[in-house]
Amino acid sequence: MKIAISGKGGVGKTLLAALLTRTFAEAGYSVLAIDADPDANLAATLGFPEPEKLIPISEMKDLVEERTGVKSGTTAPLFTLNPKVDDIPDKYALKSDGIKLMAMGRVKKGGSGCYCPESALLQSLVAHLLLARDEVVIMDMEAGIEHLGRATASAVDKLIVVVEPWRRSVETAFRVRQLAQDIHLENVAVVANKIRSQPEKEFIISSLPGFQFLGFIPYDQALVDADVANRPLLDASQNIIGEVKNIYQALIATA
Amino acid sequence: MKIAISGKGGVGKTLLAALLTRTFAEAGYSVLAIDADPDANLAATLGFPEPEKLIPISEMKDLVEERTGVKSGTTAPLFTLNPKVDDIPDKYALKSDGIKLMAMGRVKKGGSGCYCPESALLQSLVAHLLLARDEVVIMDMEAGIEHLGRATASAVDKLIVVVEPWRRSVETAFRVRQLAQDIHLENVAVVANKIRSQPEKEFIISSLPGFQFLGFIPYDQALVDADVANRPLLDASQNIIGEVKNIYQALIATA
Repeated sequence: MKIAISGKGGVGKTLLAALLTRTFAEAGYSVLAIDADPDANLAATLGFPEPEKLIPISEMKDLVEERTGVKSGTTAPLFTLNPKVDDIPDKYALKSDGIKLMAMGRVKKGGSGCYCPESALLQSLVAHLLLARDEVVIMDMEAGIEHLGRATASAVDKLIVVVEPWRRSVETAFRVRQLAQDIHLENVAVVANKIRSQPEKEFIISSLPGFQFLGFIPYDQALVDADVANRPLLDASQNIIGEVKNIYQALIATA
Repeated sequence: MKIAISGKGGVGKTLLAALLTRTFAEAGYSVLAIDADPDANLAATLGFPEPEKLIPISEMKDLVEERTGVKSGTTAPLFTLNPKVDDIPDKYALKSDGIKLMAMGRVKKGGSGCYCPESALLQSLVAHLLLARDEVVIMDMEAGIEHLGRATASAVDKLIVVVEPWRRSVETAFRVRQLAQDIHLENVAVVANKIRSQPEKEFIISSLPGFQFLGFIPYDQALVDADVANRPLLDASQNIIGEVKNIYQALIATA
């Protein structure tokens, strides 16, 4: 099972990724969690003991150079576009409680054709993770799907777009679905988060016609209180945990 | 006055940028508002009549090619690193109520050295906006400061980091300040947003020692209700408007 999570910044992608990761791990699956959002901190949210020890792949300059033949940060005209990556998850992932965790780091393409050695490495790595691994892979992404492409789209069992009752997050859902359709990725579904009331739930349903809904996670002040008090987030709200278990059930039923 | 706004996704950067833009415009300033966050929609938040008409500069393929000498999306080894940009704001900005508005679009560097013609154009444009224009410039950015560099840092009167009572947004503030210090940009200040209670305010103050605070914007359900009901956001909450006016006063007093 390969799950990618996208949505506007701040909607709760990382919390959903962390809770789904733990739910799959507790059910006995091997889970590889991928932090592909430089603005997120999946390691800390998952409660990994030393989250600062997780070095993003794009910042491993020696690894980038070793595998692509080109120094990180340079613009050599030629480098290996299919670098060896299959050993990277086992060598470089942090491991805790049956969960492997990797971070991709900050690498973007400008326009459609400016490649760097870092992005060649990450692209190959994502293709390997999605096409060749037999773990459950859960990838926490940004407000787009830039690590995915036509070659990997068919391997994504579900692209989850997280929304909250806020118009801009709904617009992002449409934009993400369009990007997904452009690469023939049709398995898109929505998880609504931070729902405070029935009108907010209805707003989201009526704003997103044609989308599959996997679940509606309630807003819970207990989560914010836990965060402010520096208590672990994953156990802060039984309401949220319960709804994520429903989402997990829906995922294994439909994927 | 040149103001840049950063912070974690979802904290409310765009709303603050829009309210500050309107406050400066109402006080008689010429304001150039820059949407530099592809995940935002400053045009819609400002209430521009046809926000979809704002084409991001990086997507103007003819302009990119005309000014850099290189086709957008290609990787030519040589292109103009100092393209002509001084006419772009007047030619390509949308205008409404004394406000000029531009969007930068999606262009990122991979690592430190992979340049594209789009990013050369945007970099020159940002330098022009910050160094050579006499308008008030308000730039809504992502969770970093990637459009800024050593050459432009000294022109930024204030880099505002928006935070909310949520640990990850505080961590982003530290990261943004570090990035700012790396380019010798010292005028960093915090605006706290979505404050629901005194303990939440105290959490933010105690979590950010050494930061200047420009203001504390209260959480107001009226804003969410207005958004869900598709009413304009800028006039939805007098509490929020009042606090942004205080922030405006603090900015003109200190910058």
